[in-house]
Amino acid sequence: MMPIKPIRIFITGGTFDKEYNELNGQLFFKDTQMHDLLEMGRNKVPVVIRTLMMIDSLDMTTQDRELIVHQCVQCEEDKIIITHGTDTMAITAKVLAESIKNKTIVLTGAMIPIKFGSSDGLFNLGSAMAFVQSLPPGVYVAMNGRYFSWDNVRKNKQTGIFEEIE
Amino acid sequence: MMPIKPIRIFITGGTFDKEYNELNGQLFFKDTQMHDLLEMGRNKVPVVIRTLMMIDSLDMTTQDRELIVHQCVQCEEDKIIITHGTDTMAITAKVLAESIKNKTIVLTGAMIPIKFGSSDGLFNLGSAMAFVQSLPPGVYVAMNGRYFSWDNVRKNKQTGIFEEIE
Amino acid sequence: MMPIKPIRIFITGGTFDKEYNELNGQLFFKDTQMHDLLEMGRNKVPVVIRTLMMIDSLDMTTQDRELIVHQCVQCEEDKIIITHGTDTMAITAKVLAESIKNKTIVLTGAMIPIKFGSSDGLFNLGSAMAFVQSLPPGVYVAMNGRYFSWDNVRKNKQTGIFEEIE
Amino acid sequence: MMPIKPIRIFITGGTFDKEYNELNGQLFFKDTQMHDLLEMGRNKVPVVIRTLMMIDSLDMTTQDRELIVHQCVQCEEDKIIITHGTDTMAITAKVLAESIKNKTIVLTGAMIPIKFGSSDGLFNLGSAMAFVQSLPPGVYVAMNGRYFSWDNVRKNKQTGIFEEIE
Repeated sequence: MMPIKPIRIFITGGTFDKEYNELNGQLFFKDTQMHDLLEMGRNKVPVVIRTLMMIDSLDMTTQDRELIVHQCVQCEEDKIIITHGTDTMAITAKVLAESIKNKTIVLTGAMIPIKFGSSDGLFNLGSAMAFVQSLPPGVYVAMNGRYFSWDNVRKNKQTGIFEEIE
Repeated sequence: MMPIKPIRIFITGGTFDKEYNELNGQLFFKDTQMHDLLEMGRNKVPVVIRTLMMIDSLDMTTQDRELIVHQCVQCEEDKIIITHGTDTMAITAKVLAESIKNKTIVLTGAMIPIKFGSSDGLFNLGSAMAFVQSLPPGVYVAMNGRYFSWDNVRKNKQTGIFEEIE
Repeated sequence: MMPIKPIRIFITGGTFDKEYNELNGQLFFKDTQMHDLLEMGRNKVPVVIRTLMMIDSLDMTTQDRELIVHQCVQCEEDKIIITHGTDTMAITAKVLAESIKNKTIVLTGAMIPIKFGSSDGLFNLGSAMAFVQSLPPGVYVAMNGRYFSWDNVRKNKQTGIFEEIE
Repeated sequence: MMPIKPIRIFITGGTFDKEYNELNGQLFFKDTQMHDLLEMGRNKVPVVIRTLMMIDSLDMTTQDRELIVHQCVQCEEDKIIITHGTDTMAITAKVLAESIKNKTIVLTGAMIPIKFGSSDGLFNLGSAMAFVQSLPPGVYVAMNGRYFSWDNVRKNKQTGIFEEIE
């Protein structure tokens, strides 16, 4: 048996990790749910998890994206999952693709916070974990059970569903 | 945009679909949770779902496996997910591999029933959905975030974890 | 066996019934979760449920409260549960107590929406259902496993916990 | 504000606390879910929790019931909740009522294990917590949103619902 090389997981926030603040009724970020989800999924693929930021993707700046690119370039793993808000996931995918050619990078997220009972987050994480192991180098978005190449994906604002541009 | 070809999903039972009978305290099979899970995952990959049986995989007979093989051969889809009890998943994978060469077949299941709050089923289904779309023709087991070729997989009875034979 | 007299349940909204809008990331009201909760609790006490409004209790006006009082006076049941946002639950309790003396009215709610996995709503509903059957006529708030008389209760804004005024 | 006297909670097992053993597919007892439930319910009533046994109520012996009676007599609290399997809850209630007159004792349980997403346990616990505070001394069963006196209650084996004997 060949040892499996670890997969890098970068956390950036997004709906995926939102929680409910019971004192003011607002959604907010505390800690990532990633460890709990991987444990629930009985995941045995070795992973190295690092939280880069905890923000809404609508608030993500050029500097934030440079940081994400930098971290993806620097890390020694060549298979990377990034959890990300869905609204600008396609933008970050494009920025990553311009700089990184030799790694498989899969961005995923959730339409409903993990902490809600009906979240899609665990399903999306399972698919991202599979796609990152089986797709060739490139930058992809994994949502709705599908994967999309960085240069042909957008979130449909009316339906909330990811789709090809053309 | 190219239309996505449907994926066939065959249900055979297993822990995945077990429910709790509150009158006698036994676990039993009623209906598959598959539709609810795909809805929760916001899956948009077209699927055709068919329940072949609803049994514990320890009770699966040679005839049951012949039926599964027959259904996989006959169906027009060439990407197939099979939900299956974990105890004999590797046996069914082997039987399938002996008869079918030109389709991508992914068997998956769950260690904990979907109806339990802490089930791995949604994660496993997400990974099976991704592997079936991205792996070349062959028969695979998708569990623990990983995929295994049919000829190099077993469930470790002590740990409940899937692993390579060698 | 004596038939049990029905309990009236009035829905007014509050955190209890908030849902997550996955298109814009906002919390909003759709339908009440009451029926699902009573089914989950295997409740067999006959109930008559009516939604009066679906609002944040911070937005509740004098007219809204008059409507609630009117409905409590008019309905033929003399045991009434009202689901209500926690922020002004004590105010509505006071208004009710000024007008209604001969009925047992229990206000309850939730700190976390029912739709979140970790909501206190089912626990609170169980306690409200019990208090309304066992307390003498009067107006009460049922939260945190306790009951409070309308004239000696407030929500501590710092802790989110209900407590006596003195 | 008067300090609230603590409520004693005795754990005896039952469906309430059953978990799923993913290695052999059997339901079993590990630890009580009581602390998690009280936290989820934001309970602020002081409680003293003690696990007396962790068994199916069909396996409960005369000695087990003597132990429960002894503990209820000995403890300094005069309000007691007992979690108990539903099948023989009425028997234990009767045994308790024969020995104890001056305390309010409420037995409750669950038709579905807490660990299942759709358990009635949190609702039942909320109602037990309320009934134990508001009912006069006596021994009661709290299930299905209702309370029953120890001498007029049985579980209907066909429906799983608690009801009066006559």
